Amino acid sequence: MAGSQIANAKEGMWTPDQLPAIAQDLKKTGLELDPTSLTDLTGFPMGAVISLGGCTASFVSPEGLVVTNHHCARGSIQYNSTAEENFLENGFLAANLKDERPAAPGTRVYVTVRVEDVSNKVRGGITEDMSGEDVFAAIDAAEKSLISECETEAGHRCQVASFYGGLQYKLIDRLEIRDVRLVYGPGDNIGKYGGDIDNWMWPRHTGDFSFYRAYVGPDGLPADYAEENVPFEPEHYLKVSAGGLDDGDFVMAAGYPGSTQRYARLVEVEQTFDWQYPKFEALLKDWIHTIENTAPADSDARIKYESRLAGLNNYMKNLGGQIEGARRVDLVGRRAEREAALDTWIASAGNAENYAETLEALDALTSESASAARDLWGYQNAKRAQLLSAARNLYRLSKERQKPDSERESGFQARDMNFFRQSLEALERRYDPVVDKAEWMMFIKDYMTSTESVRVPVFDEALGLPEIWDAATVSALLDTYYEKTELGDTEYRLSLMDKDPAFFEQSDDPFIALAVALYQNDMALEKEEKDRAGRMAELRPTYMQAIIDWQASKGFAAYPDANSTLRVTYGNVKGGSPKDGLVYTPFTSLKGILEKDTGEDPFNAPQRELDLIETADYGPYELDTLGSVPVNFLSDLDSTGGNSGSPTLNSKGELVGLLFDGTIESVNSDWDFDPRTTRTIHVDTRYMLWVMEKVDGAQRLLDEMEIVDK
Amino acid sequence: MAGSQIANAKEGMWTPDQLPAIAQDLKKTGLELDPTSLTDLTGFPMGAVISLGGCTASFVSPEGLVVTNHHCARGSIQYNSTAEENFLENGFLAANLKDERPAAPGTRVYVTVRVEDVSNKVRGGITEDMSGEDVFAAIDAAEKSLISECETEAGHRCQVASFYGGLQYKLIDRLEIRDVRLVYGPGDNIGKYGGDIDNWMWPRHTGDFSFYRAYVGPDGLPADYAEENVPFEPEHYLKVSAGGLDDGDFVMAAGYPGSTQRYARLVEVEQTFDWQYPKFEALLKDWIHTIENTAPADSDARIKYESRLAGLNNYMKNLGGQIEGARRVDLVGRRAEREAALDTWIASAGNAENYAETLEALDALTSESASAARDLWGYQNAKRAQLLSAARNLYRLSKERQKPDSERESGFQARDMNFFRQSLEALERRYDPVVDKAEWMMFIKDYMTSTESVRVPVFDEALGLPEIWDAATVSALLDTYYEKTELGDTEYRLSLMDKDPAFFEQSDDPFIALAVALYQNDMALEKEEKDRAGRMAELRPTYMQAIIDWQASKGFAAYPDANSTLRVTYGNVKGGSPKDGLVYTPFTSLKGILEKDTGEDPFNAPQRELDLIETADYGPYELDTLGSVPVNFLSDLDSTGGNSGSPTLNSKGELVGLLFDGTIESVNSDWDFDPRTTRTIHVDTRYMLWVMEKVDGAQRLLDEMEIVDK
Repeated sequence: MAGSQIANAKEGMWTPDQLPAIAQDLKKTGLELDPTSLTDLTGFPMGAVISLGGCTASFVSPEGLVVTNHHCARGSIQYNSTAEENFLENGFLAANLKDERPAAPGTRVYVTVRVEDVSNKVRGGITEDMSGEDVFAAIDAAEKSLISECETEAGHRCQVASFYGGLQYKLIDRLEIRDVRLVYGPGDNIGKYGGDIDNWMWPRHTGDFSFYRAYVGPDGLPADYAEENVPFEPEHYLKVSAGGLDDGDFVMAAGYPGSTQRYARLVEVEQTFDWQYPKFEALLKDWIHTIENTAPADSDARIKYESRLAGLNNYMKNLGGQIEGARRVDLVGRRAEREAALDTWIASAGNAENYAETLEALDALTSESASAARDLWGYQNAKRAQLLSAARNLYRLSKERQKPDSERESGFQARDMNFFRQSLEALERRYDPVVDKAEWMMFIKDYMTSTESVRVPVFDEALGLPEIWDAATVSALLDTYYEKTELGDTEYRLSLMDKDPAFFEQSDDPFIALAVALYQNDMALEKEEKDRAGRMAELRPTYMQAIIDWQASKGFAAYPDANSTLRVTYGNVKGGSPKDGLVYTPFTSLKGILEKDTGEDPFNAPQRELDLIETADYGPYELDTLGSVPVNFLSDLDSTGGNSGSPTLNSKGELVGLLFDGTIESVNSDWDFDPRTTRTIHVDTRYMLWVMEKVDGAQRLLDEMEIVDK
Repeated sequence: MAGSQIANAKEGMWTPDQLPAIAQDLKKTGLELDPTSLTDLTGFPMGAVISLGGCTASFVSPEGLVVTNHHCARGSIQYNSTAEENFLENGFLAANLKDERPAAPGTRVYVTVRVEDVSNKVRGGITEDMSGEDVFAAIDAAEKSLISECETEAGHRCQVASFYGGLQYKLIDRLEIRDVRLVYGPGDNIGKYGGDIDNWMWPRHTGDFSFYRAYVGPDGLPADYAEENVPFEPEHYLKVSAGGLDDGDFVMAAGYPGSTQRYARLVEVEQTFDWQYPKFEALLKDWIHTIENTAPADSDARIKYESRLAGLNNYMKNLGGQIEGARRVDLVGRRAEREAALDTWIASAGNAENYAETLEALDALTSESASAARDLWGYQNAKRAQLLSAARNLYRLSKERQKPDSERESGFQARDMNFFRQSLEALERRYDPVVDKAEWMMFIKDYMTSTESVRVPVFDEALGLPEIWDAATVSALLDTYYEKTELGDTEYRLSLMDKDPAFFEQSDDPFIALAVALYQNDMALEKEEKDRAGRMAELRPTYMQAIIDWQASKGFAAYPDANSTLRVTYGNVKGGSPKDGLVYTPFTSLKGILEKDTGEDPFNAPQRELDLIETADYGPYELDTLGSVPVNFLSDLDSTGGNSGSPTLNSKGELVGLLFDGTIESVNSDWDFDPRTTRTIHVDTRYMLWVMEKVDGAQRLLDEMEIVDK
C-alpha cells in the first residue's frame, strides 16, 4: 500500500521537503549527493528542473537551453512546419540563435522560485458550523487572495496546491518565461519512433527528446517574444552524462506528476472500475469510430482531428491497461483489505472516536458524488459539442466580468484571459462542423439512451429533443444549429469576449441561445458540486491524517497523491517481469531499431541512422555490457502523466536520461503501486548524444552543453 | 544455413538413420541413451512414437494408451459432444474401458514397422531421354507398385516418401489401427486455454494434452470398431517423468514434421515472399471477412464454419509471422548469399560442369512453375466452391474407375475410398449454401480482377461470366447454381460415387455440368504440372547432392527437408530473446494462469484449478527453481506443423512433455532456421499429471502409466 513499500520497491512521489526524512534510504539506494541538497528548490540540482505546464523539462546549459521530450515539444515543431519545411518529418535544427523559432502559442517555461506552506492561511477561515458551499468559498477566496498577492511581482505565475486532500496547502511562486523558442527536435522517425503502436510498450526505441531555449527581455525579466530578447541565464543547469549508467544503478527523477488516486476510498475505486471506466471505454470506442467515419484518413477534417484522435486512442489504451491491471492485482480486494487494516489500527490506537465517524461520512459523501456523476453522465457529455462549449464559456465570461476580478470564478479572471483567447483561436485548427455534429449526435444518443443517466428538462426543452431517441429527428434538429451559427468564425468568436450578458441573451445564434438557456441550471449544478467539494475539504484531511499517523506508527512516511507539483522519485535501473514467462531487459539497444524497422511509419528510421547502426559506428556512447548504444531504459521509479520530460539523474545529479512513459502494466499504479510490474521508461542520454552527433549533426548544442564521462 | 548451425543451435530434423553420424553432438548435448538405439524404429524409444496422420503421438502404457495434444484430439471430443454432454466445455474422462468412446471418423493410429530405402526401385526406370511427363509417370508407377505390394498384408498402410527432393526414396510400412477411442481430454478451459489469442504466443499456459487408446481385434490385428475389440499392446511405451526437468536440460522430440523449404532456391523464395504470401494474406483477410459477414456469430452457419474460420485465422497469423520474420532476417539477402557461397564452392571444387548447368535449369524451371502459378492463381481459387469441388472429384472418380485400380490417380484408388467417402459426408457439417456462394463470389471477383491472373475461356464460357466483373450479374448467375443443385444432399452426393462418366455428362445439375465442362482443360493443366514435376525430379536431386557434398566438405551433415516422415530433433530447455529488450523465460508456471484468468473464454480456467493454485497445492509436481508447477516450457528444438503431439523426451528417453507449438518468431524457420529466435513450445508432463491428479481426478490413467521421479 502507498507509503509502505519502501523496502521492496521505490514507490513514492516525494515532495522535496520530505527527502530528509527518507535520507537514509536515498543513500542506501545509491545517492551520492547530500539528500538535504535536494530540498533547496533554487539550489543544485532542483533549480535546474522546470515545468512546461503539462510536461517537465530541465536546463542543460548556462544559456537557457532546455531539454524535454519530443512529444512535449512536438506541438511547436508542428506549429513551425509547412508543406515546404516539414519539420515533423525531417526534424528541426536551428543553425544558430537567430534561427531558433517561436514555440507554439501558449508555450511557457515555469521556474519555481519559492514554495511556502499556506495551510493556515487557506484553512484559517473554516469554522465548524459552515456549510460545504461556505467552506468551498472560504478556501477559494483565500487561494485567490494569496495568488493575487504573489503575482504582483511582474513575470510571476503563482498557484496554491492542495496536498493530502486539503490537509496541507502550499503557495508555489514560479517565474513564467513566455518567450520560448524551438531549438532542435529530431524527426518523428526518431522522436516518435514506434508511434502509437509502441506507445506504453516495452521494448521501446523512441528518441523522445527535443530542445527549447528560454528567452527573457534584455533586462533579464520575462517578456513577450521580441527580437531583442536574450537567452535566459538559469542559476543552475544539469551536466549531461555520456557514459556509465548500467543495470541496477541509482537513478532519480524530478518532475511534475499530474494526478494519482492512491488514497482513494473503496467506494470510489468501485465506482471507477465497476462503472465509470467501462462506461467511458465504451464511449471512447464510439467516439473514435465517429471521428474516423466523418473525418476519413487524409481528409482536411482528419488533419484537424488528428490530435484529438491520438489523444482518445492514447486514453483508451491507458484505460484498458488500468482495467486490466485492476483485475490482475484485484484492486478492489486489496483496497478493501487496506481499509480493514486501517480500521483495525484506528480501533486499536484508541482513535475510533476521532476517525470512525469521519470515515463513515467520507464514504457517504463519496457515494453521493458518485451517484451525482452517474445521474449527470449523459448530460455532461451532451454539452461537449465544441461550439456549445465556446458559447457557454463566452456567456459565462460575460457574467463573471460583472464582478470585481478577485471574485470571478477561476478560469475567468484577468490572469486567465491569455489562455482563454488562445483556446478560442485554437478552435480554428480543431473544429469541423460535420465532425462536431457527428460527435454531438453520438453524445446526445448516449444521453437519451443510457439507462443510468437522468434527462435534464431544461436541456430537452431548449434543444427540442423528442421523448425517445430518434436519429432522423435529432439529426435534423442539430443541422439547424450548424446552419445558423456564426461561432465557426474565429474573428466573431473572439469579438464575443468583450460583450455583456445582454448581448448573449438577445442573440439568435442557436448555440448561444442554448448556452443562455442552460445557464441557470448549470449554475445550480455547480453550486451542488461546490458544496460537495467543500464538505470533502472538511472530511478528507482527517482521513489523510489517519493514513499519515497509521504509516508513522509503522515507521513509514506517507507521501501525498500527485497534484502537478514538483516531486522526486528515486530507485534503480531495473528490468522487470510484466507477466509469468516474460522478462523486460533494462536496456534496449540500437540493434533493436534494425529489427523493428520496416521502412514504413512509424518504423522508418532515417537511412543515415540505419547505416550507422549497420557499421556499428557507436562513437563513445557504447554500453560495453550491451555491446551497443543504449536507446531506452527501464527503472522502478514512481511516475505518472506530467512526469514526461523529467530529467533522470544519476547518483551525482548528472543527466542520464529523460523520463517519457510507463509500461502498460504500470498504468494501474495510479491507483495501487505494484512493485512487481511498475516500470518507468526513459530515453538514455547516450542515445540522445549519439543521434545529435552522428545522425543530426547538432554539434552547436553538444558544444554548448557540459558533457561528462564521454 | 541448413545443416551448418549444429555448433550454434539445434537446427536439424534428422531422419533416425542419420543419428549415428551426429552421435557425438547428441552425447555432448546430454543424451544418456546410446544414439544408435534411436535408429531402431521398432525398438525403444522410437517404437513408442506413432503418427495420427496430421499429428504425432506416443504410447504411454502397455495397454495401448496414447497421449497426444488436446488440439489433435479435439475433433473427437467435439464429435462425442452434445448439448447435454458438452465435453468441449467440461472435458471428457472415461471411467473405465467400456466408457471409452469412438474417436471421430477417420481417426487412425499409424505404427511404423519398417522403413526401406527404395531409391533404386523408384528411380530405376528413369532414362536420360525421357520427357518430364514420362519421368513423373515412371516414378508414380513405381511408387504405386511398391505401395500395393506392401499393403497386401492386411492392416498395413504404406507410403513412399521422397527425401532431398527425390534424391532418396523410402518405403514406409505402417500398421494402421482404425479402432481408436477417446479416453480423456480436459475441457477447452485447460486444453485450449488462451485460445486463438495465445496461439503461436509466449508466454503460454495451455494444457494441450489428451488421451486416446488404440484397439485391435481379439486376434491382435487392426480391425474396424467392434465391441469385442481389445486394447492394442504395443511393444514399447514411454515412462512418464514427474520431475527433474529444468532450464538447460537435454530434450529431444520424435515426430512427423510436415513440410519445410530450407533448401528452396532464391527464385522460389522471392516468388513466395514478394508475391504469393502477400497476395494470399490479402485474400485470407477477404475470405475471413466474407465468412464472418455471411455466417454471423452464434448462427447455425457459423457452427459449420467455425473450424474453417479458425484454420484461416491461424494461417493468417502464421503468414504474418513468416512475412515479418523474412523481413527481420532479410531472408532474400541471406538466401542470395547462400547461393553465392554454394556457387563458389562448386567452382572451387571443380564441379562446375556437373552442377552449374543443373542449377541454371533448376532455376529456370522454378521460374516457369512460379509463372504458371501466377497465371492460374485466380482460376485455381475460383474452383474452391465446396459443391464444385465435390462435383469435380466425383466426375474424376467416375473417369478413374474406368482404369485398373493400379493405374488410377492417387486419391482415387480403392485404398482411398474410405477417406473419399468421409470427406463427402463431412460436407454436411461444413457446408452452408449462403456462405459457400459468398465465398465463391469472392474468389470469382478475385479471378476476374487480379491483374496477374489469366482468364480461362472454358471456365468463363461454361459459367457465362461477363467480360468485366459485375457483382449483380455474377451474383444472379451463381444463384442459379445453388437453386438447382442437389449436391447439398448427402445421400445424393454419396450415391454418385458409383456412377459412370455418362451419368455425369448427362446430368443437368449445374455444378456437375460445370465440372464436366472444365474436365478436359484441367486435365491438360495437370499434364503440364506433372511434366514440370517430372523435370523437377530430374534436376533437384543433383542440386541436393551439391548441398550434401558442400556441407560434407565443411564437416557437416545435411538433413532433408521435412516431409511428414519420422524425424528426431534434439537440444535443450531454453528461453530466448525474441527481440531486443525482451526475454522469454524457459518455463511458465501455475501463477501465470491466475494472472491471465479473466473468467471469460479463452481465459476461464476451472474454479477448482484456480482454487488449487491459490492454495499452492502443487503435490509432487513443483519445480523448486520456479516455486510452482511448470505449465509450458520452451526449447531450441527444430519443429514445424505435424510435430504437434510429439513426445518430448529427456536424456533417458522418459516423457517430459508434449511438443505443441512454436513461437510466432519461429514460423519463418520453415525457410531459414534462425537460432536466435526459433523456439518450440511444450506442455510439461508435470502440469499434465497435476491436472490429472488434482483437477480432473484421472486416477485410473495415472495408475495405468509408469510414472517416474515422482
